[in-house]
Amino acid sequence: MSQVRVALVGATGAVGRQMLQLLEDRDFPVDELVCLADPREEGTTVDFRGEKLTVKGASPAAFEGMDIVFLAVASEISQQLAPEAVKRGCVAIDNSYAFRLHEEVPLVVPEVNAQDVKEHRGIIANPNCSTIIMVVAINPIHQAAGLKRVVVSTYQAVSGAGILGIDELTAQTRVALAGEEQPPEVFQYPIAFNLIPHIDVFQENDYTKEEMKMVWETRKIMHLPELPIAATTVRVPVYRSHSESINLDTEKKLTAEEARQVLSQAPGIVVQDDPGAQVYPMPLYTSFKDEVYVGRIREDISTEKGICIWVAADQIRKGAATNAIQIAETVVKENLY
Amino acid sequence: MSQVRVALVGATGAVGRQMLQLLEDRDFPVDELVCLADPREEGTTVDFRGEKLTVKGASPAAFEGMDIVFLAVASEISQQLAPEAVKRGCVAIDNSYAFRLHEEVPLVVPEVNAQDVKEHRGIIANPNCSTIIMVVAINPIHQAAGLKRVVVSTYQAVSGAGILGIDELTAQTRVALAGEEQPPEVFQYPIAFNLIPHIDVFQENDYTKEEMKMVWETRKIMHLPELPIAATTVRVPVYRSHSESINLDTEKKLTAEEARQVLSQAPGIVVQDDPGAQVYPMPLYTSFKDEVYVGRIREDISTEKGICIWVAADQIRKGAATNAIQIAETVVKENLY
Repeated sequence: MSQVRVALVGATGAVGRQMLQLLEDRDFPVDELVCLADPREEGTTVDFRGEKLTVKGASPAAFEGMDIVFLAVASEISQQLAPEAVKRGCVAIDNSYAFRLHEEVPLVVPEVNAQDVKEHRGIIANPNCSTIIMVVAINPIHQAAGLKRVVVSTYQAVSGAGILGIDELTAQTRVALAGEEQPPEVFQYPIAFNLIPHIDVFQENDYTKEEMKMVWETRKIMHLPELPIAATTVRVPVYRSHSESINLDTEKKLTAEEARQVLSQAPGIVVQDDPGAQVYPMPLYTSFKDEVYVGRIREDISTEKGICIWVAADQIRKGAATNAIQIAETVVKENLY
Repeated sequence: MSQVRVALVGATGAVGRQMLQLLEDRDFPVDELVCLADPREEGTTVDFRGEKLTVKGASPAAFEGMDIVFLAVASEISQQLAPEAVKRGCVAIDNSYAFRLHEEVPLVVPEVNAQDVKEHRGIIANPNCSTIIMVVAINPIHQAAGLKRVVVSTYQAVSGAGILGIDELTAQTRVALAGEEQPPEVFQYPIAFNLIPHIDVFQENDYTKEEMKMVWETRKIMHLPELPIAATTVRVPVYRSHSESINLDTEKKLTAEEARQVLSQAPGIVVQDDPGAQVYPMPLYTSFKDEVYVGRIREDISTEKGICIWVAADQIRKGAATNAIQIAETVVKENLY
């Protein structure tokens, strides 16, 4: 593989740090690596291949001479910086929501629609974490039996809100164990020993934006613009790994055993499904892994043709960093930069 | 109201203690109260109306002269003791699974099927906690629009496993915050900062018994023996109050506003649903309450006629103790003992 000059914007965040680790672990062919972040973080050091790299303030000029620019920052920052990277001849792989629904921007989960990378015009968008995890798990069922409807309820970890989310759960839990309450800062309400059925802002239809992302983005990734999907997204007091309870209505009848078979052979999935032996996915054990774990595979007994699954995956890895790097690997392999 | 002689079997458990408190708070017309438990707990004292009552070992002879016997014990114990209570002329209100599906035993949630109490032949069964909470919330929608299908994913508190479940979450959380892991005793796996998609034993169809209870018991309570229901039940690191994400397919189209209206007027429900003001049910705030809290009321956008709701309620109170006492209140009011 040819060597690639890489810039990483947001190198000090939860996803950025994870990306650095993965670039190293996956032997991504990095020729040169420039780490960028908010100018206030300039001078921070991060680790890469045993060296300390000094973080610079992100600015368009820093993209000169780069091949691939990863953006792991807020939408408003991506909105400004991704086009600047493209102007300078880079491929921008953007983790934010900013470009995901732009018609000319591919939205890619390599296990599902790697071929869409070929259509890129400079920017490739990395989907929402809950969406990535879901589409990896439901696409094989779609291929085998045709999806008619998706109903999903999520159980989302606090690290979806970054390092501050993690710290808030820890601090609040300590305080709660002492019988006190700590006012929330990151989340809307205390998350320690609680559930919050509210992620991202409410839309006009009373769904949250997180819920609608799962609708809009899934349809785009799967090239099923009419697929009926309803999501309810809930924050839970878990550090890492989102979990999802998914009911799938299918065109063709699939038995649980057939679904298990199909999922076992699908890319990026580990089937953990042996009820008798108490084997099923749990977020504590799917954290720091790159695969999507699928279990509790059953026929949906509320309909003639349907499958229920329970899914867990590390949303910082497969739900963000790993997927972005897989996109970059496709770009490099197909020589699309 | 006439005065009633009451025996409470399982007075030292999480549900039993809650029942004592509620008998007092709700001014249940207790003439005499006998507290019973496992013979190993004989001599323990419990509080009632400012007095210390001494717990006796449970035995059939203790039911002599009683009017109502509450059983808040394991199924095997209820199986033995409930018929003994009936033989001695008592009405047995049983919290266990033992008699719930017996044809001649009414299974009652007073907001839904109070009239079934009249059919009792000595035993009245108190449903499963997750089921009680769900039927209170979905029955008004059924009355208004006819239910065609129910899909539910639960988020169940550790106190569903009693006082030991609560203690295990606390102990494991302390240990986890110190970076260690404590082997589980009550649950199958660590529950601190984790989710366990496994409550009660697995059935042949790979659903758990908890999931199938929600199917079987809901159908019986609502007198809808064919209602299609699929449940996925999950233990979460929350102390009290079960939460449920429910998708309802209906015969008639109901708008979100109509559903909100219907639910607001229904018995036993508090609607908390103002997304703009961040108002929705959360288990931390529905604990130690008797009502079922319903929010996140939306049209189900994955189907033409459907409603999504998010529900939370204290499963030790409305999900167990409160419901049992409401049944007893109906028995007393209707003079059915």
